[in-house]
Amino acid sequence: MASVRELAEQAKQASYRLMLATAEEKNNALKKIAERLLSSTETILAENAKDVEAAKKAGTKAALVDRLALSKERVEAIAKDIEGVIALDGPVGKVIESRKLRNGLRLEKVRVPLGVVGIIYESRPNVTIDASALCIKAGNCIVLRGGSDAINSNRVLVKVLREGLNDAGLSREIVQFVDSTEREKVRELLSLHGLVDVIIPRGSGSLINFVVQNSKVPVIETGEGNCHIYVDKKADLSRAYPIVVNAKTQRPGVCNAAEHLLVHEGIAEKFLPEMVKQLSEKRVEVRGCEKTRKIVSGVKKATDADWGKEYLDLIIGIKVVSSLDEAIAHINRHSTHHSDAILAEDRETSEKFLRGVDSAAVYSNASTRFTDGAQFGMGSEIGISTQKLHARGPMGVNELTSSKFVIRGRGQVRE
Amino acid sequence: MASVRELAEQAKQASYRLMLATAEEKNNALKKIAERLLSSTETILAENAKDVEAAKKAGTKAALVDRLALSKERVEAIAKDIEGVIALDGPVGKVIESRKLRNGLRLEKVRVPLGVVGIIYESRPNVTIDASALCIKAGNCIVLRGGSDAINSNRVLVKVLREGLNDAGLSREIVQFVDSTEREKVRELLSLHGLVDVIIPRGSGSLINFVVQNSKVPVIETGEGNCHIYVDKKADLSRAYPIVVNAKTQRPGVCNAAEHLLVHEGIAEKFLPEMVKQLSEKRVEVRGCEKTRKIVSGVKKATDADWGKEYLDLIIGIKVVSSLDEAIAHINRHSTHHSDAILAEDRETSEKFLRGVDSAAVYSNASTRFTDGAQFGMGSEIGISTQKLHARGPMGVNELTSSKFVIRGRGQVRE
Repeated sequence: MASVRELAEQAKQASYRLMLATAEEKNNALKKIAERLLSSTETILAENAKDVEAAKKAGTKAALVDRLALSKERVEAIAKDIEGVIALDGPVGKVIESRKLRNGLRLEKVRVPLGVVGIIYESRPNVTIDASALCIKAGNCIVLRGGSDAINSNRVLVKVLREGLNDAGLSREIVQFVDSTEREKVRELLSLHGLVDVIIPRGSGSLINFVVQNSKVPVIETGEGNCHIYVDKKADLSRAYPIVVNAKTQRPGVCNAAEHLLVHEGIAEKFLPEMVKQLSEKRVEVRGCEKTRKIVSGVKKATDADWGKEYLDLIIGIKVVSSLDEAIAHINRHSTHHSDAILAEDRETSEKFLRGVDSAAVYSNASTRFTDGAQFGMGSEIGISTQKLHARGPMGVNELTSSKFVIRGRGQVRE
Repeated sequence: MASVRELAEQAKQASYRLMLATAEEKNNALKKIAERLLSSTETILAENAKDVEAAKKAGTKAALVDRLALSKERVEAIAKDIEGVIALDGPVGKVIESRKLRNGLRLEKVRVPLGVVGIIYESRPNVTIDASALCIKAGNCIVLRGGSDAINSNRVLVKVLREGLNDAGLSREIVQFVDSTEREKVRELLSLHGLVDVIIPRGSGSLINFVVQNSKVPVIETGEGNCHIYVDKKADLSRAYPIVVNAKTQRPGVCNAAEHLLVHEGIAEKFLPEMVKQLSEKRVEVRGCEKTRKIVSGVKKATDADWGKEYLDLIIGIKVVSSLDEAIAHINRHSTHHSDAILAEDRETSEKFLRGVDSAAVYSNASTRFTDGAQFGMGSEIGISTQKLHARGPMGVNELTSSKFVIRGRGQVRE
């Protein structure tokens, strides 16, 4: 088998050719991939069944087995998502800025592909196709490193991708797959500074942390969400109850679900008993600060460690704060800078929160659950960036590009 | 002395307050800093003299001593540059995108400060002020780590910065200085993931490489420039000679100077003798490939190692290529992806070059020497990014910002 460096070298060379491809060529390749996906459904499901069986045998939790499992319907849904990507506006070649300089030089800042994107991900095999489709749309080559539990599924899906590219007259080498479950291969991928242009880890906090700590290649961190809702003393409580219930319980296992509730002390006695009642009815475990527990009896005690936790479960931490400033400071300290909301009827208060909270998405009077590429009108997303360089929040196809300056002259030299 | 982590913690806290500052407050602080700079000229020059003397005693090359030395005129020039920064449009709070979603949510993508910027730099003490002024303009706090040979100059300049901030009623803690020459402190700064939002190294290739290899904090690589000029078979030679002479000799020690010349074989015999003659007249040492040396006698032999070199000196490498594709492939392989130019009268040829060469700035029919924030009409620059994430090419005040999504609702929840 080729080394990871060799795979990346092949991708780099292919990326120079792909930079010259037209939008039609790239869309045609995506179309061929979708066709191959549908016509290969039987083989894909057979390979996926091996992974599912192995996971069950290993005693994997049912929720994780479900993430791993494909079905005819799921394969069709993945093919449909490719059509969505085809329908997106292709970003490559778009002029972002343009001006004529005083010396007559014509300057343009143009969107260009990033080059080679490395994706390190865990069990969900649909990522293999979704991430590749977005990368190809943006003119990038891709090096995939999936989870070991999906190795058979990923292997066949990569075959589908490469055959689709070939059907369309593009290079198979646009998609590279690290066909090994050794951890050492991840380290090798992370060392390829200059060959791989960016690494995007998708998965658990520990995976992301491993990548950040070990990568020489620039990383875009995605996904961890310790999201907060702050209920101000001037909040409209009739709106607050359904927003908190929605943000916590509509889908508790995702990154934009709320994990902690901050409540202004001026409204806590009025608000908390009913709020805790509604949450309990939805089988949410409530953990509260001292003040919360004085107001509502029977609430479990929150420890200091609770404030930093992304539960991804039906658990919520509640803290009573004495001011807006305390709420902002608490969030800036404990948040993962993903999505945080204020519920307040006073404009000045909410604007200060929106400005002062240092997160990718800040809300007034809405559920945090909207932080998502499709919800934001960006089409498919490759992840939600919680860091500040390059892209912040949901990352769509534009965020998979870089830019270059193109300068056209007629013999100009510098004085 | 406080640890680097403590300095960064102070900067982080200060950054949350600075996010709320108005453009006027930030400009006023810059004005006070410029005033303090001018009124402290005597002290600054006295401290700088210590560094200059120490450098001379250590046998430092005259060119490097010159980079280190300040004078009344240089201090005035630095103060004038601050006025230029004040005059720039402040980026913070600008709405980049805005739309109403179908559920009535109003979504804005807004420019916000990055937070805490770490700058690691070498001898030039003017960077201390220039970089801080741009960071403050963009609402960022800064952690400075200058070269040991400028320690006395930097110490007094940091005092000027902090007093200016204080004069304007802003926190002194916006500017932090690692007042130590130990290399270990750099490592500590590079480990502060989550506290420092970005590291920008400014200096030699070995400094930049050390930072890339050791940083857990996102890095923006700047500056190295192995720049090429490709003379196509359809080039206008009367334009080509002055462009190559300008790009190579106008200021050979800077990153956008040309280092290598590629010449199409169809024009080499006609072009090279006169070109080499003109370069030699400017005392440029020419190193050529076999074909070059057959055409022009007396040219030194270029080794394989030459093609990757940034000489920063009156040396040029010349290679004859057999096609546009070979030229593009050579550049993509050996360039540092800074600035590369084609000289060609044929539009299709030059457009293919501009698209296919994977560099931050690509030129047709002009000198590479224009890659510069001021030349590009962006105002002052904090460096020239040669990587692809976040910013590519000259980085001005906009590139020192991030963005956030601000979503304003009226009780919306996710279905």
